[in-house]
Amino acid sequence: MSTFSRLVRFLAKDGLVYYGDAILPAGQSDLTQVTKAKVIKGDIFGQHRVTDQVAEIKTLLAPLARHDIKTVRCLGLNYEQHAIESDLPIPRYPVLFYKPVTSITGPFDDIPVPAIAQEGEGLDYECELVVVIGKEARDVPESQALDYVLGYAVGNDVSHRDWQLKRGGGQWGLGKGFDGWAPFGPGIVSSKLIRDPNTLNITTKLNGKTVQSSNTKDMIFGVAQTIAFLSQGTTLLPGDILLTGTPQGVGMGRKPQLWLKDGDHVEVSLENVGTCSNRVVFNKPTAKL
Amino acid sequence: MSTFSRLVRFLAKDGLVYYGDAILPAGQSDLTQVTKAKVIKGDIFGQHRVTDQVAEIKTLLAPLARHDIKTVRCLGLNYEQHAIESDLPIPRYPVLFYKPVTSITGPFDDIPVPAIAQEGEGLDYECELVVVIGKEARDVPESQALDYVLGYAVGNDVSHRDWQLKRGGGQWGLGKGFDGWAPFGPGIVSSKLIRDPNTLNITTKLNGKTVQSSNTKDMIFGVAQTIAFLSQGTTLLPGDILLTGTPQGVGMGRKPQLWLKDGDHVEVSLENVGTCSNRVVFNKPTAKL
Repeated sequence: MSTFSRLVRFLAKDGLVYYGDAILPAGQSDLTQVTKAKVIKGDIFGQHRVTDQVAEIKTLLAPLARHDIKTVRCLGLNYEQHAIESDLPIPRYPVLFYKPVTSITGPFDDIPVPAIAQEGEGLDYECELVVVIGKEARDVPESQALDYVLGYAVGNDVSHRDWQLKRGGGQWGLGKGFDGWAPFGPGIVSSKLIRDPNTLNITTKLNGKTVQSSNTKDMIFGVAQTIAFLSQGTTLLPGDILLTGTPQGVGMGRKPQLWLKDGDHVEVSLENVGTCSNRVVFNKPTAKL
Repeated sequence: MSTFSRLVRFLAKDGLVYYGDAILPAGQSDLTQVTKAKVIKGDIFGQHRVTDQVAEIKTLLAPLARHDIKTVRCLGLNYEQHAIESDLPIPRYPVLFYKPVTSITGPFDDIPVPAIAQEGEGLDYECELVVVIGKEARDVPESQALDYVLGYAVGNDVSHRDWQLKRGGGQWGLGKGFDGWAPFGPGIVSSKLIRDPNTLNITTKLNGKTVQSSNTKDMIFGVAQTIAFLSQGTTLLPGDILLTGTPQGVGMGRKPQLWLKDGDHVEVSLENVGTCSNRVVFNKPTAKL
């Protein structure tokens, strides 16, 4: 069980990057307006402690450093209404695919769209509940599965439908793995605070207009069931990240279809967690990661 | 460019685990009979050097430690004759999927088959040329792509066809990612020594009988072309591993079909590199990874 309540990673006003336990402003229940955190020292997945040192947050970063992230798993078609809008059958088992660690980016970073993903149509958003594994899990029963969760965040499984569905030989890898195509955050709310992850409102706003609005109770495979299933014969590691699928309302499922454009502003929000707010930027100069 | 010729990672007779530069026995051109190595000190992907300390190899391990491995990418249907035997069209773009880092195991380790993968039919082997990325690569042209390669190895993309093709909603994730389902090694032969990776004989023997025999020149997308393509909009990291697809002769494509059984012995070999030799073991007690 984690020692923190709401893990954030941030560039502080002193110019250094810290892990911290967010200090919520009075009356707030999510990370939207957080400006301070108690600095955490040590290994987030091992020995660490929350200190009394309070740091001023300048910019929230992806809540885990890249070297703390292991495998990034994603589920497809895990909300019934989304399976229906996609014209695909309700899956019998979780539909598993992956993103590379380089797709992970911060909650307020731009989503860069490289030249190869500006071709064709189909740039799309997907708001998702993100689960962060906190300790090694293998062959765990559903009844104990949530004990292996460090906490929860919200993320955007940015997708290019042409590359995902038409040009990848049926595999979704090509259309979902570009650099920065998995913004997540704004922090990781401990499973001490979110006891039941399958009761949370989840939304996407595109340029201020709500385009996805659902609740994680509509997931076909709930979080505990998914972790138990994915751990069969497979060791989930501390720092593994699981994006649990998106509800209805994606651009592909709308009539008429709605594709992201250069300059669009996408916000994905999860109850009790907060919002990732990202701008879509074509032709962003390549930055050193 | 690497400082070593043939990178091995091993448990030494002194009981410690080292990275080393293999010392080949006289007359040998691959790693099959290697028993000694010069110990490498430092960070394999950063500052390091090959020392004069010679260690006696007790057991060769996966050539990269888990913390040195980042994303594991794989290609599907990348040999023309294999696409034909699979009754699938020749792909227009590389077919990309992923394995988790926990699938990586050593060249002589058992391949554990968990209960969930003992159901149904379809346990299969796939010999593959494995490419290890040595430095950050993004948007690289094909003409420079091989400069980003640390070296080459051979691996087995162990697959369960029912989970891969019938139960995964069309995504291959479920049937290829179990613990230890990507043995690779026996070491990583530097790209200094293998200047052209698309000229190498590659084979699988099952219980001593050859079942796959091809050459990497039959790859649809060669190594340089694949790296250049996959790096578009995507940063390949030092320690990323790429399995480049398998030739014809897999169990699924044979008449009658041929599935791996408990106790089977599978050897995948690559010219100038050597052999991974693994036993299929049902109901292996779960070991701490």
